[in-house]
Amino acid sequence: MASTILTFTSRDQHRSWLTSQAILPRGFRVGAAPLDVVPVETGKPARMVITLLALDRPTPDFAALFTRNAFPGAPVIVGRRRLSAPRLGAVVINNKISNVCAEGGVEASERLCAHAARGLGLSTDEVLPCSTGVIGWRLPVDAMAAALPAAIAALQPASILPAAEGIVTTDLYPKVRRRTVGEGSVVGIAKGAGMIEPSLATMLVYVLTDLAVPRDVLRETLAHAVDASFHVMTIDGDTSTSDTVVALSSGAIPCRSESAFADALTGVCADLAEDVVRNGEGVHHVIRVAVRGAPSVELARGIGKAIVGSPLFQCAVCGNDPNVGRLVAAIGKHVGLHAPGLDLSHATLTMGGRVIFVDGSFRLDREAEAALVAHLRAAELYASVPPPDGVAFRPPLDYPPHERAVAVTVDLHAGSGAATVLGADRSHEYISENADYRS
Amino acid sequence: MASTILTFTSRDQHRSWLTSQAILPRGFRVGAAPLDVVPVETGKPARMVITLLALDRPTPDFAALFTRNAFPGAPVIVGRRRLSAPRLGAVVINNKISNVCAEGGVEASERLCAHAARGLGLSTDEVLPCSTGVIGWRLPVDAMAAALPAAIAALQPASILPAAEGIVTTDLYPKVRRRTVGEGSVVGIAKGAGMIEPSLATMLVYVLTDLAVPRDVLRETLAHAVDASFHVMTIDGDTSTSDTVVALSSGAIPCRSESAFADALTGVCADLAEDVVRNGEGVHHVIRVAVRGAPSVELARGIGKAIVGSPLFQCAVCGNDPNVGRLVAAIGKHVGLHAPGLDLSHATLTMGGRVIFVDGSFRLDREAEAALVAHLRAAELYASVPPPDGVAFRPPLDYPPHERAVAVTVDLHAGSGAATVLGADRSHEYISENADYRS
Repeated sequence: MASTILTFTSRDQHRSWLTSQAILPRGFRVGAAPLDVVPVETGKPARMVITLLALDRPTPDFAALFTRNAFPGAPVIVGRRRLSAPRLGAVVINNKISNVCAEGGVEASERLCAHAARGLGLSTDEVLPCSTGVIGWRLPVDAMAAALPAAIAALQPASILPAAEGIVTTDLYPKVRRRTVGEGSVVGIAKGAGMIEPSLATMLVYVLTDLAVPRDVLRETLAHAVDASFHVMTIDGDTSTSDTVVALSSGAIPCRSESAFADALTGVCADLAEDVVRNGEGVHHVIRVAVRGAPSVELARGIGKAIVGSPLFQCAVCGNDPNVGRLVAAIGKHVGLHAPGLDLSHATLTMGGRVIFVDGSFRLDREAEAALVAHLRAAELYASVPPPDGVAFRPPLDYPPHERAVAVTVDLHAGSGAATVLGADRSHEYISENADYRS
Repeated sequence: MASTILTFTSRDQHRSWLTSQAILPRGFRVGAAPLDVVPVETGKPARMVITLLALDRPTPDFAALFTRNAFPGAPVIVGRRRLSAPRLGAVVINNKISNVCAEGGVEASERLCAHAARGLGLSTDEVLPCSTGVIGWRLPVDAMAAALPAAIAALQPASILPAAEGIVTTDLYPKVRRRTVGEGSVVGIAKGAGMIEPSLATMLVYVLTDLAVPRDVLRETLAHAVDASFHVMTIDGDTSTSDTVVALSSGAIPCRSESAFADALTGVCADLAEDVVRNGEGVHHVIRVAVRGAPSVELARGIGKAIVGSPLFQCAVCGNDPNVGRLVAAIGKHVGLHAPGLDLSHATLTMGGRVIFVDGSFRLDREAEAALVAHLRAAELYASVPPPDGVAFRPPLDYPPHERAVAVTVDLHAGSGAATVLGADRSHEYISENADYRS
């Protein structure tokens, strides 16, 4: 959750703020280079960007978490191997083609790492590969190798913004978040909920710090931070084959408080998670559901995810329609499946801070309806604009106008389990982006 | 699954076919009457229909299955009580207001039953109530009681079509299916995946037979039939608070083969399930996923539901875009969560009868892409038509032009578990219908 509610009135204003967030921690360099590729599967030219995150010196202190999808991409398979490598010196990232379930994918990723390692003076197992984009297509390693020298030449120690921009697919804007801890800093970037034609939402996150945090502590801290941020958000429930979160410490600055570092890391991850949701495809409203009084944290989280994952509730929110009956339907569906018999007779619901359901029934009238509509409208990022061709909707803006959210609380009064989940509505822009009206 | 692939070229042709399916079994009468109501929650007038399904004589042989949603509607609560009643003589059904989580809902349903019972010469517990429509609104019992005499006066023994039409909300067309068994018949109707402004998808199904089937057998047979039909379909994953499936036997004709009856009942339920999906809000394509070779039936069914429930796959199908990478993402998500460690290296996938994935990687090229696009196009029910206001999409037809489906098969080669699941794509029409652009 963002600590303050930011508002932006222009792309330039948003970019200026991003630039202020993008100051690189000490000990890192970032570079990117574009190239044109022609996937053999379609024969249609496409633009790819290769992005490099490099350390001044390889570090033993790195952490990475990967998708739980049972068809992981080749870079995820290679990345898991790297977890046991003694040091990491660079991450090489490409968009457009995710190298998932493509023939020879693991070999392709390793070959790309070898090329990058040669250019950077590293060994192959000191390079972590990441890819995002279309599933099933093969990585054009030779073309990418030819573009690597340009990315290496572009390496600079000032800003992470070129990487935040280089890794996107159809994200509306780059995502960067920063926290300082004493002399040091924690800076993260994310791409996510973006698509290309035709591809799958994948989320890539990189968090860099100059604070010296040992590998074991970094890995444990990252797992906690991810659990409290990326694991409680959803755009469309489609767990990607490529999701990856990486944390790298250059060790340039002593870390005097591991708990302060953990807070900073968790804050950066939580902010990026909210950024990813807010930039989700076709998102008109971010929805924040706080569940408490559940018999367990797991059930609280499940109920939150059931609400933000309900297509009917998503659509109602998109239309600024306070169709709150769909809230109880979503809660009831989840409890009926996962905690049948649980007493829901004391549950209370609020929306926009207003009590709408208590003692088993709704408290609705015309005045409540008007207040709920006003809350939904205040949280709206933009309204749909009829597209020129009548069906291919595009968001009318490319920066987040504010950080407000639709606020829903659920108190089951049946225990002490609590969780807050982030989600989003469902709009014409999502359908247009993912239906690919090319055919 | 429909036993033959029907095609319709006009609403009249579809209606003529429905009429042929709608012949009532012996021992039943059907009537319906409209009325105008003004929900106190919004003050906006709405049109409701009261529908009656009546037996010539109350029967001990009835069965009903209800939603597993943990916030069941008041009619579901009353309906569960009725399961232990000695006999059932009628079902009274209304649309527009579902009487879920509304104050005094159970009393309202019981009062409506009492009114209907008086008019039909029955006792209150011989009347089963069903409601569908907006959640959270209160049932206008007095206005409904005033309209009951007209519904009773309309009772006739020839056709179930007035009931199939009376129970709909925003269904594009009524749904009726029929099977004969010797001299007897099994006739079912369904409403489903329909919405009103603003409401929740609910599914109501009524199957009538004149075959004499004892209560216990009827209940067991219905449970099996529902498991093989309604339990393997999904439009949007939103389990309703009101889902109800009822089977009534008038006992007018001896049942010589319970297995023939079971086949007929299962056939009617399966056909209605497919009708409900095909008539689902904004559905452009029905998707049929056959999974086999799974370690269990449960996992096979879960994988099928994960595929048809993936918003990304749904959108791709809507756009006739063979973005088959999203298939492995959906399978991998489900297996990663529910069967981690399962060996997927021998999985094969087909679409439209064509092998697209084998030995861990896709088999894609331009020719395959063209064949898959052709398969998707052939299964398309209609294409989106730009709406006058630019955002509120409406389906351009009100009958099903054909019964073709997008055919996906998954063989895990990891056991003998198999299941076939029905689902649908996701379109602008779904968003428009459920976002309610009134506000």
